[in-house]
Amino acid sequence: MYGAIEAGGTKFVCAVGNEAFEVLDRIAFPTTTPEETLTQVFEFFDRYELKAIGIGSFGPIDINRDSPTYGYIKNTPKLAWANFDLLGAVKQRYGVPVGWNTDVNIAALSEAAKGAGEGMRNVLYLTVGTGIGGGAVIGGRMLEGFGHPEMGHIKVRKHPDDPFAGTCPYHGDCLEGLAAGPSIDARVKKKGYELGQDHEVWDYLAHYLAQALYNYSMVLRPEVIVLGGGVMKSPVLLSKVKGILLELIAGYIDIPSIDRYLVPPKLGDDVGVIGGFLLAKMELDGER
Amino acid sequence: MYGAIEAGGTKFVCAVGNEAFEVLDRIAFPTTTPEETLTQVFEFFDRYELKAIGIGSFGPIDINRDSPTYGYIKNTPKLAWANFDLLGAVKQRYGVPVGWNTDVNIAALSEAAKGAGEGMRNVLYLTVGTGIGGGAVIGGRMLEGFGHPEMGHIKVRKHPDDPFAGTCPYHGDCLEGLAAGPSIDARVKKKGYELGQDHEVWDYLAHYLAQALYNYSMVLRPEVIVLGGGVMKSPVLLSKVKGILLELIAGYIDIPSIDRYLVPPKLGDDVGVIGGFLLAKMELDGER
Repeated sequence: MYGAIEAGGTKFVCAVGNEAFEVLDRIAFPTTTPEETLTQVFEFFDRYELKAIGIGSFGPIDINRDSPTYGYIKNTPKLAWANFDLLGAVKQRYGVPVGWNTDVNIAALSEAAKGAGEGMRNVLYLTVGTGIGGGAVIGGRMLEGFGHPEMGHIKVRKHPDDPFAGTCPYHGDCLEGLAAGPSIDARVKKKGYELGQDHEVWDYLAHYLAQALYNYSMVLRPEVIVLGGGVMKSPVLLSKVKGILLELIAGYIDIPSIDRYLVPPKLGDDVGVIGGFLLAKMELDGER
Repeated sequence: MYGAIEAGGTKFVCAVGNEAFEVLDRIAFPTTTPEETLTQVFEFFDRYELKAIGIGSFGPIDINRDSPTYGYIKNTPKLAWANFDLLGAVKQRYGVPVGWNTDVNIAALSEAAKGAGEGMRNVLYLTVGTGIGGGAVIGGRMLEGFGHPEMGHIKVRKHPDDPFAGTCPYHGDCLEGLAAGPSIDARVKKKGYELGQDHEVWDYLAHYLAQALYNYSMVLRPEVIVLGGGVMKSPVLLSKVKGILLELIAGYIDIPSIDRYLVPPKLGDDVGVIGGFLLAKMELDGER
């Protein structure tokens, strides 16, 4: 049996699965302090014999195996977790191989293996919610450079009618600053789901997200882009993004039809834990 | 012995090398028609017993092994070469394994193995000349999605004082349209090497190139970025790009010191042919 931990900034999900990556048991609880949260993680997993575990974590995290802080959560506004050795704590408890990557990279892994990108070797996963994060499987492997991607922080052109300065504490008006959920709140003092589908904010967000997807497409050349996160649930947003992205590409690169290129996630709530099982198996098999 | 072909839009370079990837013989000639150019290629290589050949080609090219047009040059303004099966022609002549990739991907491969990125697994190579092209080795492998990267065509924010509309026939003011060599010519009717180092055009180009390097950094997380091509020979340009890139990153990701992060190529004129030898060996060994 495999264990999976989806370590999110607001909640943790733990699950155990079989060789077919089917979920046999799962539990979710709020993310509080490392001590409290890990006590709950251990209570859940202590009841099982696990062969390996996979962790998909909120970031930024250290995924460089040669680094002395490999397995640590790095600087994060959630101060109790900053510089916490999450991988080490889990490894020490269970003494089995533990895979470690970002929540969005294992979402890409999961959708590539069993979801919207099934059978494809080049899958980009982007979540647009409280923040914007991207992960990818390229050439059949998770995208990892010297560190993990920080795709949400790229620069995009401002929409000429959007005066908003952005919410990113590091970059102001980077993509995340201009197009994540809190940018809607900051502009109009409403949540996205409270806005009419004809509100101009959707034009701004579509303008930024389409540019970002265009840039990712030119750099990574995915076969499919899976768009998750609460903000993407607006029906008008996806449709606007598709139109602008097609204009930007202008026929320059081959993509599938736009409705097969930009798709919603297929694995729903299981995307993280299935990704965790897959990562656990990769770590067990020594695949990197 | 390995053969290497650097198939450029203006010239072809052919070389043979030994197991240590040392250049034993080389020849260069202008790119004319496929028939004429290949006659010269064959004349050169016919004198040698080759174990394998590597081709780094100008693009766009088809690098998808599952495609019926794998090995073809695709739509290119050099009409005689459009839809030409360059890989097939070389394979048929010599009946040995022939590796096939973009000129910039094999430049990244070459600089990662023997040049400015020696010992690193995450190397980005960007050339800024007649066009702008990027290649990369990420996690020790050349970056290939469903097709090869088209990094020169990403979108960047306009400099507020630069009214120029861009030269790209597909996208107008994409990076290549705004910052490749022909953009200098089109703005001021001079070549880059004729401009004073205090000319405002260098500010515009630095603004665009730094944004592009920032975006690539956030998506790919390279350990080093090797900057080649004629335009990058301006001393003031590199120094301006470094300053702006540091401001954009704002301490958000770890990079080496900026002088070790942005570096010139180390292999000079041999970058393409050494990359070709490396690619030849990879194809022979079945490494992908």
